[in-house]
Amino acid sequence: MMPSQISLVGLGVMGKSLAFNLVDHGFNVAGFDIDPHHRQAAHEAALPLNMASGKGQLTVVDSLSQLLACLQTPRVIALSVPAGEVIDTVIRELLAAGLAPDDIVIDTGNSLWTDSERRARDYQGQLRFFNTAISGGEVGARTGPSLMASGDASAWAQVKPMWLAIAAKVDHAGQPVGQFEQGEPCAAYLGGAGVGHYVKMVHNGIEYADMQLIAEAYHFMSQALGLSAVEIGHCFARWNQGPLNSYLMAISAEILQTPDPITGKPFVEVVLDKAGQKGTGMWTAVNALQTGVAAPTIAQAVFARAQSGLKAVRVAAAKTRTNPASVAYDDIDTQLENLHDALYCAKLSVYAQGFDLINTTAQQQGWTLDFAQIAKIWRAGCIIRAQCLSEIASAYQQTPDVANLLLVAPFAEAVNRQAPGWRATVASAAQAAVPIPAMTASLSYFDALYSEVLPANLLQAQRDYFGAHGYARVDDDESRQYHLTWSEQPKRQQIR
Amino acid sequence: MMPSQISLVGLGVMGKSLAFNLVDHGFNVAGFDIDPHHRQAAHEAALPLNMASGKGQLTVVDSLSQLLACLQTPRVIALSVPAGEVIDTVIRELLAAGLAPDDIVIDTGNSLWTDSERRARDYQGQLRFFNTAISGGEVGARTGPSLMASGDASAWAQVKPMWLAIAAKVDHAGQPVGQFEQGEPCAAYLGGAGVGHYVKMVHNGIEYADMQLIAEAYHFMSQALGLSAVEIGHCFARWNQGPLNSYLMAISAEILQTPDPITGKPFVEVVLDKAGQKGTGMWTAVNALQTGVAAPTIAQAVFARAQSGLKAVRVAAAKTRTNPASVAYDDIDTQLENLHDALYCAKLSVYAQGFDLINTTAQQQGWTLDFAQIAKIWRAGCIIRAQCLSEIASAYQQTPDVANLLLVAPFAEAVNRQAPGWRATVASAAQAAVPIPAMTASLSYFDALYSEVLPANLLQAQRDYFGAHGYARVDDDESRQYHLTWSEQPKRQQIR
Repeated sequence: MMPSQISLVGLGVMGKSLAFNLVDHGFNVAGFDIDPHHRQAAHEAALPLNMASGKGQLTVVDSLSQLLACLQTPRVIALSVPAGEVIDTVIRELLAAGLAPDDIVIDTGNSLWTDSERRARDYQGQLRFFNTAISGGEVGARTGPSLMASGDASAWAQVKPMWLAIAAKVDHAGQPVGQFEQGEPCAAYLGGAGVGHYVKMVHNGIEYADMQLIAEAYHFMSQALGLSAVEIGHCFARWNQGPLNSYLMAISAEILQTPDPITGKPFVEVVLDKAGQKGTGMWTAVNALQTGVAAPTIAQAVFARAQSGLKAVRVAAAKTRTNPASVAYDDIDTQLENLHDALYCAKLSVYAQGFDLINTTAQQQGWTLDFAQIAKIWRAGCIIRAQCLSEIASAYQQTPDVANLLLVAPFAEAVNRQAPGWRATVASAAQAAVPIPAMTASLSYFDALYSEVLPANLLQAQRDYFGAHGYARVDDDESRQYHLTWSEQPKRQQIR
Repeated sequence: MMPSQISLVGLGVMGKSLAFNLVDHGFNVAGFDIDPHHRQAAHEAALPLNMASGKGQLTVVDSLSQLLACLQTPRVIALSVPAGEVIDTVIRELLAAGLAPDDIVIDTGNSLWTDSERRARDYQGQLRFFNTAISGGEVGARTGPSLMASGDASAWAQVKPMWLAIAAKVDHAGQPVGQFEQGEPCAAYLGGAGVGHYVKMVHNGIEYADMQLIAEAYHFMSQALGLSAVEIGHCFARWNQGPLNSYLMAISAEILQTPDPITGKPFVEVVLDKAGQKGTGMWTAVNALQTGVAAPTIAQAVFARAQSGLKAVRVAAAKTRTNPASVAYDDIDTQLENLHDALYCAKLSVYAQGFDLINTTAQQQGWTLDFAQIAKIWRAGCIIRAQCLSEIASAYQQTPDVANLLLVAPFAEAVNRQAPGWRATVASAAQAAVPIPAMTASLSYFDALYSEVLPANLLQAQRDYFGAHGYARVDDDESRQYHLTWSEQPKRQQIR
């Protein structure tokens, strides 16, 4: 038997799919799972693949010792196990089974980036710790995911050919191509231990916001404009031919045109409007708050899911609603054009927030990142793949140190040009009592970014008044702190 | 020498002020600070107080051993030291100096509530650990703060008379009264170790949002309506006579009417518009995200401070702005009425978010809280003291288990009635390119709360499509999960 070049520990949905993808591209893979049923299922599913010519082999083994025995050295062991304590448990078991210091262990799960940094320290000298955050779900893992690699730099040389082979690929125009076609792979080595999972976390924050924005466009069209699900689906399919082109827009168009197999009604209308979350979007919003970077659209997407969960409260509240909402005043074609522009501008704002967050964290952590490269590996394989990512990659290639995406060509020009439609949509939704929190927060973000003056001067004056925090002046060096002695009397003045 | 009833460790601004407040109310206080200059300053400042009749005495001592020696037993030691590791260091030193297991140590700092919970466990059996979060800054501490107490229940009986004496007080109408007048004290025992600091944290989140809302009103009046600082100050002073009455509104009115002593210009216009933050507002927004409770206005207030910090980027961006903003269409009196209503409704939304957060955390942590009591102890002494807190207290007394403040009388009726002005303001600001992120996010929050249908159905369909997450149906029990088998082909469809 040929020794295997790589192994998978964990043969659940993701691990099995990655293993088969590797086999498809000619690599010999060893696989192990603690659950004998998973082992059996992977073994049986691998049989037809293993008989195909020109491909690799998946060998399912019954223990970690056997796994180590059938691997080329230095060994490569990719973990596809739940994030958290399980990863450390498996690593300890691998060490007990005879893992060597130059063997490579790759965490492919949805780990918190700070855990990855901690593990790199903990396992220093015992093994070469590596990380690869994977986007694209089961289908991506099987036929071409987006791979965000980071960790021990010496490990990358050995991992690289495999990751480049199995990653999603794009053609010269930046468009995704098929699994076995030639193209530029959506896989890259990004830096030290935590970087891959950090970038993936922000990807997921962008994904949350992008999904919410599309949902808000649907909501506005349905509630304010009175369009049917199928009509909205048609409109989305048309928009998907232009600058809004993206995977999420494509599947939303399809979903909206899909009938429910049980009732025949539009499918989307039989789905309960309570959204779940797995936490990574929330992590991004938390990280933005802690880093001091404005990411309001991402936070609004998380809060929108929270509010959706209170269905019973909402249903009861809606019955007591008495505030009048006015209908929209423009004709429907104008409103749809406005909404299109609002959606596009808001989407760009989300990317601006996400990249600003990555950039600020990179500065704080001392990471050197290539933002064009990050945009490029999101062009295929992952959930947020979209046409605008090619344009973002170009923008960062031309202006690597731009402070904010919304300030650089061609986005500055596009957003300024399309802002009127954005404003009109936000105004209409406010008047029509249709909540579009993410689209609205994006406009506030954009307007604040382009505001020479913001009212933080009053905030600073308030803080100096009640807390003696001091203030800087517009007519002096801002590092110099002043304090005004406010009279004691008004401080204690009675309210009312 | 009379033994002291309480001691202060840490005689900085807050500790000294608390000590003098206690002396004012007839208590004998022992004080210690590790810095001899602080000790000397406190000693000198205490001399006139110590000579006054009918008051207590402040005795400044030179070591923790002396401090313990001059206290009644069981001893009460209030710490006024920086939050974090210092607290544990001082506690260890107190234990080394002979602290007894029934002695009471009170953390009065801005501690993270989970640290307080941890300390209660760590010091179990060694001392009685108690917490009191204090709002009101230096002036509050000196003349009457709001005191949020929690921790060892047996300690409360001994601490209570002192805290009730020094707390801010309100009259029968809920209005603050002077330091030595009779009234209902703004101090209460709220529950187990972390509760006091938790409630204070949310108080600070509300404070951030309330400050930001007032700043946005000022910004809209200045940028969209063209009013001067003094005119805005006059308007705020007038609004402060009505339902918007609050400490923050009062000081904002005063600030806006104050001239800069150096240039004679309106003071607010010489203050640099870059806001700082000390973290507790950010903690609240983070906690809301982690708890799964929508608190968008609080998060927007934190993000607004972050955006204000990028002054150089904003100034450069403003020069390149090309998107046209339309001026407001109504007459100025109507716009001011609308803005008044927007500010009032948005402010109530903030309280709704804050109380929902406390309520949800209480349920998760198994705390039994009296929300009317929390509203009551915020009526005086603290930064967010406001007329509406009396109404909130009444609402919670009548309906203790309301799901959301915006759903209960009199707020449901007020917000529904005043929503048109809120909508008009948000629409005008969007058209005028004046960012009012907190006011706008509050409207989205309100509209979502009153929406029977939200577009989370499309989110769930998207998640089922790309991640096989499953979905619940509107026509079946929501615990039952469905999954639609989406065709493989569209999943892999090329974008564009």
